[in-house]
This record gives sequence, C-alpha cells and structure tokens, in this order.
Amino acid sequence: MHTPHGDIPTPVFAPVGTQATVKTLAPDELTELGATLILANTYHLYLRPGADLVARMGGLHRFMGWSGPILTDSGGFQVFSLESLRKVSDEGVKFRSHIDGSEHFFSPERSIEIQEQLGADIIMALDECPDPMNYEYNKVALGRTHRWAERCLRAHTRPDQALFGILQGGIFPDLREESARFLTALDFPGYALGGLSVGEPKEKTWEVLDFTVPLLPQDRPRYLMGVGSPEDLFAGVERGIDLFDCALPTRLARNGALFTAHGRINLRKAEFAEVAAPVEEGCTCYTCRHFSLAYLHHLYKAEEILGLRLNTIHNLHFLLEWMRRIRAALQKDTFGQLKADFLARYVPVQDEAQRRDNLEQRRGKPGHRRE
Amino acid sequence: MHTPHGDIPTPVFAPVGTQATVKTLAPDELTELGATLILANTYHLYLRPGADLVARMGGLHRFMGWSGPILTDSGGFQVFSLESLRKVSDEGVKFRSHIDGSEHFFSPERSIEIQEQLGADIIMALDECPDPMNYEYNKVALGRTHRWAERCLRAHTRPDQALFGILQGGIFPDLREESARFLTALDFPGYALGGLSVGEPKEKTWEVLDFTVPLLPQDRPRYLMGVGSPEDLFAGVERGIDLFDCALPTRLARNGALFTAHGRINLRKAEFAEVAAPVEEGCTCYTCRHFSLAYLHHLYKAEEILGLRLNTIHNLHFLLEWMRRIRAALQKDTFGQLKADFLARYVPVQDEAQRRDNLEQRRGKPGHRRE
Repeated sequence: MHTPHGDIPTPVFAPVGTQATVKTLAPDELTELGATLILANTYHLYLRPGADLVARMGGLHRFMGWSGPILTDSGGFQVFSLESLRKVSDEGVKFRSHIDGSEHFFSPERSIEIQEQLGADIIMALDECPDPMNYEYNKVALGRTHRWAERCLRAHTRPDQALFGILQGGIFPDLREESARFLTALDFPGYALGGLSVGEPKEKTWEVLDFTVPLLPQDRPRYLMGVGSPEDLFAGVERGIDLFDCALPTRLARNGALFTAHGRINLRKAEFAEVAAPVEEGCTCYTCRHFSLAYLHHLYKAEEILGLRLNTIHNLHFLLEWMRRIRAALQKDTFGQLKADFLARYVPVQDEAQRRDNLEQRRGKPGHRRE
Repeated sequence: MHTPHGDIPTPVFAPVGTQATVKTLAPDELTELGATLILANTYHLYLRPGADLVARMGGLHRFMGWSGPILTDSGGFQVFSLESLRKVSDEGVKFRSHIDGSEHFFSPERSIEIQEQLGADIIMALDECPDPMNYEYNKVALGRTHRWAERCLRAHTRPDQALFGILQGGIFPDLREESARFLTALDFPGYALGGLSVGEPKEKTWEVLDFTVPLLPQDRPRYLMGVGSPEDLFAGVERGIDLFDCALPTRLARNGALFTAHGRINLRKAEFAEVAAPVEEGCTCYTCRHFSLAYLHHLYKAEEILGLRLNTIHNLHFLLEWMRRIRAALQKDTFGQLKADFLARYVPVQDEAQRRDNLEQRRGKPGHRRE
C-alpha cells in the first residue's frame, strides 16, 4: 500500500495507538520494531484532546511525533460498545462520553470531518456494529451501514486520505454478499471486514472470510479489523487479508503475557524468577537482547513501569517479525511450509479464552481497557 | 571518582533506581542522558527479588543491564523510616517487610553482606538515622553509628567495592565534629553526610555543611544523601559536595512536574493544552526535541505511560545538564557567575513545600512511594 507517509509492505500488522500513543512506546521504538502502520482511535481522540486541537497542533502525525502511516477508525465501534450510553438513528448515533457523561453525536459526515482533522493516511467509513449472530439486527443495520458509506464518500474532501469501506453482515453469507456487492460498487480504495472477532466462534470468522474475500477486488487492500493473535494472522493471510490491527499484543504485554514460538507464557509465574535466559532464545528484540526472564519477572512483581514497555516491545516484535517472515514466504511461495512450521510449535490459548480476549479488546471498553 | 565500571566526573548527580530500574527508563536512555552513576536501594532489592538471587543472576549490573557505576545505600534509611515496624539495638535493627510483614534483621555485617551480593561499585555503611533536630537521640545514635561503621569496615571483603562512611549528628556542630573526627580516623575512601534533607530547615542543612565539610579530607568524595533540587545542587557544590542522589526529579516527573530554567511547571494545568512549543525552548533532551507541551499535557490527562517516561527524561536531563555546566564552570573558575545566572531566573518552590517533598522522598516511604 502507498500512503503520503510511506509505503506499507503487505500483509501488515498495525499496532494500536488508541490515545495517540502505542501504549508505553515512543515513536522511535516503533520505528526500530519495524512498524509501518499504526492505528489510532477516533472516538478517544475526539473526546480527548479533541480532533480540532490535534488539527491546530499540525495533525496527528506531528502531535504524536510519528512520521509513518496512520489509520484511524471511524469511532463507530467504540460508540456501539457503549451500549446503554448510545442511541442510533438513520441520521447517526448519539452517545455519552465515558469520561464525563457529556452528550455527543457522530453522523457519517461528522466522523469523516473528525478524521480529516486528525489527518490519518487511511480513514474508515462509519458503520453500525451489530451482534454478528443476530440475523434480523444485521439485516436492518446493514442498510444503514451502506447508506452511511455513501454519505461518508460524499463528505470526504481530503484527497491525501484513503477512505476505506467496511463490510458488515455478521456471520450470514447472504448479508455479507450483499455488503460486498453494494460497497464494491462504490469503488473504495480498500475494504475492511467489520463485525468479526467480536464474539462469534472462530470457525465462523474463517467461514465469513472464505466466502467474502473472493467477492472483493484483487487490487484493493482487505482489512480484517481487530484480529491479531499470532495463529490468526496465518489464518487471515491464507484467506487473502492484507491488513490487521489488534490491541491484543500490547494489552497482553501489560498483563505480563508474552508470545514465544511455543505459545504464550506469563511472567507472574514463579518459575521465571531465576531464569537467566531471555524470553525467547534467538529473539532479536531489544528486550531479549538485554534482559533475562528473571529481570522481567522482577519488574512485573515490583510493578515497575519499565516492565510494561519491555514486554510490549517483545510482543510487538514477535508479531511484526512473523509478519516479515510471512511476507518473505509469500514471495518465495513457501507460505504453507512457514505456517505448518509455526503451528507445529505454537500452542494457541484455548479458543474460548481467546474469544473472550478478542471480544474484550475489540469492544474497546471505554473507561476500562481503552484499547 | 574511579570505579571498576567507569570513571565518574564530579560533582555528580545520581538518579535513583530503587528496584533495579530508574523508574520508567531503560539503561540505554540513562546512557543517552549522560548518567554516570545510579543509586539502587538495598532495602528494596533485599526484599524483592532478594540479594542472593541478584548475585546468582550475575550481580546488579548484569541483572538490570546497566554497565556503568552503581551505588547502593545500606538499607538503614528505609528501615528507620518504617517507624512502628522496626526495633533497633546495638546488634542491629529488626524490622518487618512493608510488602508482606515478614520479620528481618539488618546488622552492619548483614548490610555489607547484602551489598556485596548486589555488587555495586560504591556501598554504604549501616547507620542509624535519627530526627536531625533531637539532640539526645542523636547523641546516643551517633555512638552506635560509629561502632557500626567499624563493624562494616571489618565485614567488608570485596576490594572492588568502595565502602563509604556516613556522618550523622543531626544539626548539632559538636556531634557533627565528633562524627567527622571518628570516621575520618577510620580512613574511608569516601564520606557521606547522612541525616540531612530529612525535615530540618534548609538553612540548617547548609549550616551543617558549612562547618562539617572542612573537617573532611580534601582527597575523598563527599556525598550529600537525598539532595537533588536544582537550586540545592548549586548550594551543595558551593560547599564542597561531590556527589548527590535524589528521587525528587523522577518522582516529580511522574506527578507531571517539570523543571524549566524559570522553575517548575505542572503539566496538569489547562494552560498547556495547546502549547505547540516544547517544555523548554533550546532543551536538547529527547522529550523536548520531539514533543510539544500540548502532547505531554494530553499524555498526562489521558494517564498514558509514555508520558511518565518523557517527563522523567526531561527532568533528569535538566539536572544532569546543569551538573555538566557546573563542572565546566568549576574548571573555568566561573561557578559563581553560573550560579548567579541560574538563580536569577530559577524560582524555587516554597521552602516549606520543598522540605515536605524532600522529607517524603528521603523517607523512602516503603509501600507508598518506593523511591
């Protein structure tokens, strides 16, 4: 993908920088990690510090000191996760701030206006995010999502920003097909799959991809929103996904859970108290090059802030490094072998636990977990 | 000063790394800041992760990934600040852990043994830390501190570590003189002034220095423990102090208080919300080179972890940079002019507030503020 702030080799994983910072990391660390795209949340930045303020400070890139590509979501996902605090109509969605209870309104036009103020390279259409298993709600919401997509396109004025459309339709093939047909006719420069990884069984996620991705144009990026466990990157890439974002690796890091080639480990366990080896032998991340598991365990137990950062560096490195390997394998046509090698060693967490993880982080939980 | 881990130009300010990390910072950031010595707290490391574990992990330098000089205190200061949780005798001091209430005992010999396990370049004798204004208590405690100093010297076995003596005697000239006489006769390679900056009026601190420092040998470093506000560095250097440590700059940073040439500012203030300028124009620290006050204000309000680090970097840079200027001025014999220039602009916080700050941080407040 090409953007005004640089090219993005695909498939790509985008770390999440909810409040104009990838939690615990400075921009130079993201560069060192090889991040080529980060995501920021419109809902959060609109509320604090305000999109107009960010615009007056020169836009999001300058404000947060990150000169690489940025993607902003529409804000819709967080608003729809507010549940009791919001009310949706054809015009848009009224909601209350999780910070101070103040009342706000997002229409498609307003979401685009805010995203133009923030100034990301890739921006997203406002969509309605229903329960993916509820057919009737999805049917109604889909019409609204499509009308909103048209209004977003009309409202969009900045040619330096690529506005992506978002497919909805839950787990239902007929609705997904309708959504693909409608949105591809609008000729967006990229398409996201919304309404997935939000509580549906994992096999349903892949089924939706299996029948939806072929309906999308080959020459436009396809974005699977909110997916980012290591094994899911392989499953998504295999089905033609070019772009992923997920707060899972950074949130897990702050909870002491670290990725290794054999699966996740958790630093809180006493077994790591005296391990002089790094998290993963041979890992080239800053954390593994400089620190032992024993030290990371100590930082975790002592609640030291440095630990949150060192853990975040390792987890993001893990995902970004495997994405680099995936890209190389795709070029050499050895993706199948790479995937088999990875899955032969990597033991995913239980599907149930993982679905809960994904749901929690995808819901954005304003006021609680903010990513 | 020369140590096995490098030379230390003096006068020097040592950032505090209580739990084997200068809070929020990685070792490479300390190097970039030009830190040449850091302090770690024996009390905290003894309790967690344990000095024996640190020794098995190769010592403190290797454990925390810092290859420069380290100083450890004796643990006495934190133990004496536990108040109701400790009991002192000639043999040593019995205390309860602030973490789990478990019972422990520090004797002079045990403090040295622990500090030898940690492996710092400079270690400190165990001393009793009384209220600096209480003559009778100081008189009794001083004898004990002196007997403990002798026992520390006898217990000390590692020739690669420099063991410093600590003068006590509160604000009382006769006791300070007695302490200087007794300890200098023991021929320590360095001398610390303990029992200061712990609640006494600031002018008393300087009075004690005025009559004590001349009693110390010219060729041994003099260490003023727990002092580190910018104006106090000038006052200390002027009186012959070579070495300072203080958690104030790092703790203030985490509270959003930042040093500038004109005094402290606090990021929480709404006036900074739209300031596109850095904390201090011309400041060469990483924070000021990359970020606006508006961004730091946002990180503070949004409780983002990155903010704690960027603030810490700025405050430490401020102190270390002024120390560099002080050293250069001493060489050019222009210290008086530098001090006048600094004080002409810098407005210290109210003496009263500052004394409270110093007291709080010096007391170590185990369980609360850990630095």
